[in-house]
Amino acid sequence: MDEKIDLRPKAKEYCGVFGVFGHDDAARLTYYGLYALQHRGQESAGIVSSDGRFLHEKRGMGLVPEVFKERDLAKLHGHIACGHVRYSTTGSSILANAQPFIINHAGHSLCVGHNGNLVNAASLRRKLELEGSIFQTSMDSEIVMHLLARRIHLGFEEALLEALQELRGAYCFLFMTEDTLVAARDPKGFRPLCLGRLGDSWVVASETCALDLIDAEFVREVEAGEVVFIDKRGLRSVKPFPRQRHSHCIFEFIYFARPDSQIFQQTVYQVRKCQGAQLAKEYPNLEADFIMPFPDSGNYAALGYAMASGLPFEIGMIRNHYVGRTFIQPSQDMRDFGVRVKLNPVRELIQGKRVIVVEDSVIRGTTTRARVANIRRAGAAEVHMLVSCPPHRFPCHYGIDFSTKGELIAANHTVDEIRDMIGLDTLGYLSIDGLLEGTHTSKEGFCLACFDGNYPVPIEECEGKFALEKC
Amino acid sequence: MDEKIDLRPKAKEYCGVFGVFGHDDAARLTYYGLYALQHRGQESAGIVSSDGRFLHEKRGMGLVPEVFKERDLAKLHGHIACGHVRYSTTGSSILANAQPFIINHAGHSLCVGHNGNLVNAASLRRKLELEGSIFQTSMDSEIVMHLLARRIHLGFEEALLEALQELRGAYCFLFMTEDTLVAARDPKGFRPLCLGRLGDSWVVASETCALDLIDAEFVREVEAGEVVFIDKRGLRSVKPFPRQRHSHCIFEFIYFARPDSQIFQQTVYQVRKCQGAQLAKEYPNLEADFIMPFPDSGNYAALGYAMASGLPFEIGMIRNHYVGRTFIQPSQDMRDFGVRVKLNPVRELIQGKRVIVVEDSVIRGTTTRARVANIRRAGAAEVHMLVSCPPHRFPCHYGIDFSTKGELIAANHTVDEIRDMIGLDTLGYLSIDGLLEGTHTSKEGFCLACFDGNYPVPIEECEGKFALEKC
Amino acid sequence: MDEKIDLRPKAKEYCGVFGVFGHDDAARLTYYGLYALQHRGQESAGIVSSDGRFLHEKRGMGLVPEVFKERDLAKLHGHIACGHVRYSTTGSSILANAQPFIINHAGHSLCVGHNGNLVNAASLRRKLELEGSIFQTSMDSEIVMHLLARRIHLGFEEALLEALQELRGAYCFLFMTEDTLVAARDPKGFRPLCLGRLGDSWVVASETCALDLIDAEFVREVEAGEVVFIDKRGLRSVKPFPRQRHSHCIFEFIYFARPDSQIFQQTVYQVRKCQGAQLAKEYPNLEADFIMPFPDSGNYAALGYAMASGLPFEIGMIRNHYVGRTFIQPSQDMRDFGVRVKLNPVRELIQGKRVIVVEDSVIRGTTTRARVANIRRAGAAEVHMLVSCPPHRFPCHYGIDFSTKGELIAANHTVDEIRDMIGLDTLGYLSIDGLLEGTHTSKEGFCLACFDGNYPVPIEECEGKFALEKC
Amino acid sequence: MDEKIDLRPKAKEYCGVFGVFGHDDAARLTYYGLYALQHRGQESAGIVSSDGRFLHEKRGMGLVPEVFKERDLAKLHGHIACGHVRYSTTGSSILANAQPFIINHAGHSLCVGHNGNLVNAASLRRKLELEGSIFQTSMDSEIVMHLLARRIHLGFEEALLEALQELRGAYCFLFMTEDTLVAARDPKGFRPLCLGRLGDSWVVASETCALDLIDAEFVREVEAGEVVFIDKRGLRSVKPFPRQRHSHCIFEFIYFARPDSQIFQQTVYQVRKCQGAQLAKEYPNLEADFIMPFPDSGNYAALGYAMASGLPFEIGMIRNHYVGRTFIQPSQDMRDFGVRVKLNPVRELIQGKRVIVVEDSVIRGTTTRARVANIRRAGAAEVHMLVSCPPHRFPCHYGIDFSTKGELIAANHTVDEIRDMIGLDTLGYLSIDGLLEGTHTSKEGFCLACFDGNYPVPIEECEGKFALEKC
Repeated sequence: MDEKIDLRPKAKEYCGVFGVFGHDDAARLTYYGLYALQHRGQESAGIVSSDGRFLHEKRGMGLVPEVFKERDLAKLHGHIACGHVRYSTTGSSILANAQPFIINHAGHSLCVGHNGNLVNAASLRRKLELEGSIFQTSMDSEIVMHLLARRIHLGFEEALLEALQELRGAYCFLFMTEDTLVAARDPKGFRPLCLGRLGDSWVVASETCALDLIDAEFVREVEAGEVVFIDKRGLRSVKPFPRQRHSHCIFEFIYFARPDSQIFQQTVYQVRKCQGAQLAKEYPNLEADFIMPFPDSGNYAALGYAMASGLPFEIGMIRNHYVGRTFIQPSQDMRDFGVRVKLNPVRELIQGKRVIVVEDSVIRGTTTRARVANIRRAGAAEVHMLVSCPPHRFPCHYGIDFSTKGELIAANHTVDEIRDMIGLDTLGYLSIDGLLEGTHTSKEGFCLACFDGNYPVPIEECEGKFALEKC
Repeated sequence: MDEKIDLRPKAKEYCGVFGVFGHDDAARLTYYGLYALQHRGQESAGIVSSDGRFLHEKRGMGLVPEVFKERDLAKLHGHIACGHVRYSTTGSSILANAQPFIINHAGHSLCVGHNGNLVNAASLRRKLELEGSIFQTSMDSEIVMHLLARRIHLGFEEALLEALQELRGAYCFLFMTEDTLVAARDPKGFRPLCLGRLGDSWVVASETCALDLIDAEFVREVEAGEVVFIDKRGLRSVKPFPRQRHSHCIFEFIYFARPDSQIFQQTVYQVRKCQGAQLAKEYPNLEADFIMPFPDSGNYAALGYAMASGLPFEIGMIRNHYVGRTFIQPSQDMRDFGVRVKLNPVRELIQGKRVIVVEDSVIRGTTTRARVANIRRAGAAEVHMLVSCPPHRFPCHYGIDFSTKGELIAANHTVDEIRDMIGLDTLGYLSIDGLLEGTHTSKEGFCLACFDGNYPVPIEECEGKFALEKC
Repeated sequence: MDEKIDLRPKAKEYCGVFGVFGHDDAARLTYYGLYALQHRGQESAGIVSSDGRFLHEKRGMGLVPEVFKERDLAKLHGHIACGHVRYSTTGSSILANAQPFIINHAGHSLCVGHNGNLVNAASLRRKLELEGSIFQTSMDSEIVMHLLARRIHLGFEEALLEALQELRGAYCFLFMTEDTLVAARDPKGFRPLCLGRLGDSWVVASETCALDLIDAEFVREVEAGEVVFIDKRGLRSVKPFPRQRHSHCIFEFIYFARPDSQIFQQTVYQVRKCQGAQLAKEYPNLEADFIMPFPDSGNYAALGYAMASGLPFEIGMIRNHYVGRTFIQPSQDMRDFGVRVKLNPVRELIQGKRVIVVEDSVIRGTTTRARVANIRRAGAAEVHMLVSCPPHRFPCHYGIDFSTKGELIAANHTVDEIRDMIGLDTLGYLSIDGLLEGTHTSKEGFCLACFDGNYPVPIEECEGKFALEKC
Repeated sequence: MDEKIDLRPKAKEYCGVFGVFGHDDAARLTYYGLYALQHRGQESAGIVSSDGRFLHEKRGMGLVPEVFKERDLAKLHGHIACGHVRYSTTGSSILANAQPFIINHAGHSLCVGHNGNLVNAASLRRKLELEGSIFQTSMDSEIVMHLLARRIHLGFEEALLEALQELRGAYCFLFMTEDTLVAARDPKGFRPLCLGRLGDSWVVASETCALDLIDAEFVREVEAGEVVFIDKRGLRSVKPFPRQRHSHCIFEFIYFARPDSQIFQQTVYQVRKCQGAQLAKEYPNLEADFIMPFPDSGNYAALGYAMASGLPFEIGMIRNHYVGRTFIQPSQDMRDFGVRVKLNPVRELIQGKRVIVVEDSVIRGTTTRARVANIRRAGAAEVHMLVSCPPHRFPCHYGIDFSTKGELIAANHTVDEIRDMIGLDTLGYLSIDGLLEGTHTSKEGFCLACFDGNYPVPIEECEGKFALEKC
């Protein structure tokens, strides 16, 4: 049902990671770091700390402040910590799949947190099971642990670097042993990962907004294909992969990353404003009384458009700040309730006006259609819409779940069809060139697969019962 | 500690009310109505329904979606319902004080929900107790029940109208018996209350945004001094009080009411934009690179200022949408953390710039000081601030709790002192005249006591042990 | 369904009370006292303490150790405490009806705990409501509070003694103010109440087993018709009622009181053994291989019978000590499961044998029938049964609930019919004379209404909507 | 502190198991079976069912009725089920160690429940880890899974039989795959395991009392060294071990097994009565007024003693049936409270009398000492005690935990010393020969290690960090 769907985010990243080395309050810092990365995963959260001898863990379903209480942090002793927020897949073993994932093996403890998606997970797992390994979860992340355990006679560092060679796909890993923190980013650099300093401590995080919150200094990105080992001797960087062309995820700029983060060498806020300004260039002749975003996702592109076009910017719909993740289903006759409960139009502002709505992306179109209907019911004379990215036509295999049912509206419909389905007077998408223009970086370095279907790492087929749950 | 305080709202309204008569799904509609009124009370919520013979109730601590589950609504049978959201006072009997409050008396059931504050509560209660009445709670609202019970031989309607004559102060009451819904607004009309229709049903709500959510039509306000009886014969209006000058709460326009609501004959969004435009008139010579609000409270005045002044509008601080009502206290050395967790500056935007920040009000000043410090740390060259109302110098006795400790910064400090305490280059407040200009209505009809100390209804002194808990 | 019913006790006392005056750890002692009185009420428990200035309370649904945690006791400050265990009536307001019940009135606090049942509750309440009193609960105990509040100008002691004059029925009350503990027992002495000393402290309890547990010395019973005031000046006894013939509840001896308690001047254990010995006298010619009780209720009479008759005593059925108050309903085809889960026959012992089962009472007969069937399935050649009291033919109006549905098997069936319904070879009840023989006290002083229908205090009719919930 | 210890059982068996094959309501039957076996494990419980394709599981901490709700059973689909009750070892991963334990491996699911203790667990685990196996728990039971997984290419049955060859110690295993139930008992038969039929279904249980509860017929014991495979083709018995002398645990007869169970070819009730009668033979000259048990553990031997000696049997201490597993610690000055709360002496019975107390065993002696002190405080003239087994001098390595701190009182003290420590006039233990006399079976077939230190299976040393948690 549309209304039910509307409360969920339109696209889900699998995860965010955060780690600290060398701070007395490592777990608490990690708690704040996860707080700042909450938008990257809202279904489970976990922190593992090490006091040099033992790992301590707390994981749970829900938001960061729901999972951790003061007494939990009090038990997460130690100067090293590693945290994770996640969208878990549905199913019986929900908590079991929360991360970071710990194993105790041959007298040592090891944990891993993972952001991304491996494309050869199924075949790796099948091979390991036939050799006698018993898996505990259906997560990608467990595979790297078994690959490591089978090579542990080489020593931890060598075993890890060898294990990473077997993996294909997108990943930012944080590993932690009793005395070492390791950050690893795949050779194509799909997902962001940054390195910071807080006094003498090192910090690793998915986005810089997590550094800001704890007042840490942003040092640099962990490079694509880089493995960083941090222990009491300091930080060592290893680059075990041949150099490759990058494939940064463009959707991090468009939707996922927080506007106050800096990723892939740009500030997200500015990139989004540029996208709005590009829209003004590509659609110069639209006439309207004012421009308004769907808040807050469309705010930045709308501002960029307003500045470039000179059209007034209004906040035509008001967010209800108390909408949680659940509410009780309305009766059938309450149209578009699920949408209205989040955003209510300011009737007096809209009545009789020609409005342009700016949105960052349209995935399934159901929410958008309901919102546009609400604007019309508030009395708008004309409703035009500009989208600050191209149409989404292809699924992502590198860690983003656009939709539970695969219903990408643009996969099966032309722009004109979509315009009519949504009930707009005009619908305009930003072009791929316009999109890249806003990034101010090499146009070559991005994964645009969701727009053009060119997957930079080939996808392995799912093969029946050995395939992992997620396939 | 400042950081802890910052997560609480800077001022608290005691309540919001919502009622429905004549709808098969009355309790469910009330649930949605409370959802839309959540900003008026976040500590407890309750719904009482009537099926014509029995009242059914569900009350609990927390937000509306936390308190009510589908199974609760399923038990709230009937075609009449009345709901309430509330800030309860602290203390042992927290749930006991949740509303609506029900009594069963002499074979009948009666419930009441109340938004406002009586100023003669203590003396009324003392008198009733000495006559043998046993009180169950420390709420104002119980007093009206005892006044009514002692007159019940007159019949319900007459007893109610007589009981209301005894009350002094601010109130919007919803009463409900097995077959009747009653809405009563005090003769000075301190708090908003509106009347709507949904098909054949009547709806009463604190604000029109609750009508919008259930797609009900806004009919008119319940008038100041009006008592509306709704039963199967229809709606009857009684006006038992002599006509008086109104005292609408100006702070509903400035801060409390939702911007998409229409109260006191105006749309809140437009009033706030006008206040921003008035600021531009009163402070014409401020030089800056751009203007930014503290989101979302300052959004509308900032837009009004930007349009009037021509200065660019930027969203210089980003909200973390996942900040709940609690989080774990940071270590002492994390300055201003409680503020930073909610709003993070966009560093690249602010660095080296002269910014004007617009905020709707400054109560204690602690949050504001911390936010300004964050903007400076992000590299701002100059930070100026404009506040879209006059300085708050006096407490409210009609239902708003500005602060738990009574620390109104403007009560003890000049504007220059406040500017220095907050760490600003410039600080400007809107004048009372400028404020009223924006309301587009009679300047006479408002309570401005928090600015000028002129209390339209005299305040009774609290007298030792007979005083209610709240005094 | 029979099986479901079997886990509930066959008869329910409404309550047990316990109070302490003058001990630094008053609430903790009360906790232990309630622990020892748990058999008198298992659905809710509560403790109220006083530190001389304020009352502190904790009440909850469930058993004593479920309701109270260490942190609760830590908050129950003070040197006076009063506790209560209860069977609440079913309905929506279950916790509201837990006791002790507190009111705050005219600057003072007062609490009450009650064991027993008033027979003129409905008419008293009706009268009070018409005079304007608002009731909070449907409990008898609230009535005495309103009677008191309306006389409070007389001073607490006088007001209480006057209020008690209005009551008819069975009661042991504990009252507590900030500085005084009061115990009151009705003039007929239906329920037991005893007085003890622990060092310099006074203790009041429903049964002496509660004194034993805290190592207090048993001083004497609170007399029928006595009101005991305990404050810092010591203990004062008032006897405000004319002297009357006693009506001690004989069922306390048969079933309710713990065998290790001393009530009505006798040790319960010895009384029950005497009842068994009387059975041996009244049924001298029964032939069998051994005698066995339904444990533990029939243990003592069975021992008495075995000693008097010379027949071997065996524990032919074994209790499962882990049976809680709930378990999941079995499938339809598992006959008598609810009974078997509690008591399992020792097959090898019973097979081919003639057994006499001793039980203390038979109320509805359903559990007994199922247990007898289990003994037969285990291979018994003959099953005879002796009951250590007469047939229950009449309901109790003084505080015991024999059955939720009023199905007293002996009210509608002859002994021969009951024998056949239960599936016995022989069924013998103890005579009233034989029963009284065992008490070793005046035969005049007991209420035998459940056996002979002679109610010592007349019962008021229930009258429609004013009747209390319980009627 | 002694009082705290007293509420825990004096000795703990690690587990009980129950399985069903071929019944539509397999999980529900298992629930009842576990209910009847609750005395064998009270800290966690679990059920796994199979519908032929998938396993379904529910495990939790607490008693059986606390862990399982109707909705849980409703989800445990299928015609095969296997359940487990357990004392888990303390530690962080308590729930993780609840059984039955499930793995999903190479497309198949497998679960195991275990009663007993392996003595070569540590060395097996160390070897497996060095070969790359990653363990999830610290339970013995996981080892057999890894041994199996590494042989899975042989097929399930062959792999299982080979894996069992590696194990040393005491075990009754239940294994379950999607379509097969397997019961395996170690070649020495330490723990009991029985086989029953319910219509066309097969049932396996630790004790026959579980068969009784579900009305199943007791067929025979699973033999020592027997592995029983049950699938849709029926039951197949495999005996993969060379025949060995048996080592049945004598303490099952003395204390653990329920008196209504039949184990090792005897009814426990009768064995215990014989032990009592043996005591009468071994201590013929004790003079006393009556004999009493510590209920219920001493009940059966006391009855046997009374019958053999002709001395009256009295229930001199009364159990509080509502004592749960926890209660709040009393103040220091309440001597022996933890004991008194469970058993209260009947003062009038004991006063001035010479009593013999019968108990089944004395492990640490602290509880016994406190109980004897209570009897003396009630006024006993003399207190003699007879114990229906020999002194416990050695720890058990085959699945019984006599004490958390290893304080076996008889390991370090003579009988005379113990008598004085406990405060007795006389203390007599049953001799080993007297004990075996009561079993009516081959005296050769029992493990008597806790009395004589002769361990029938050699104990492996614990070796530092590779040793399992339990060592």
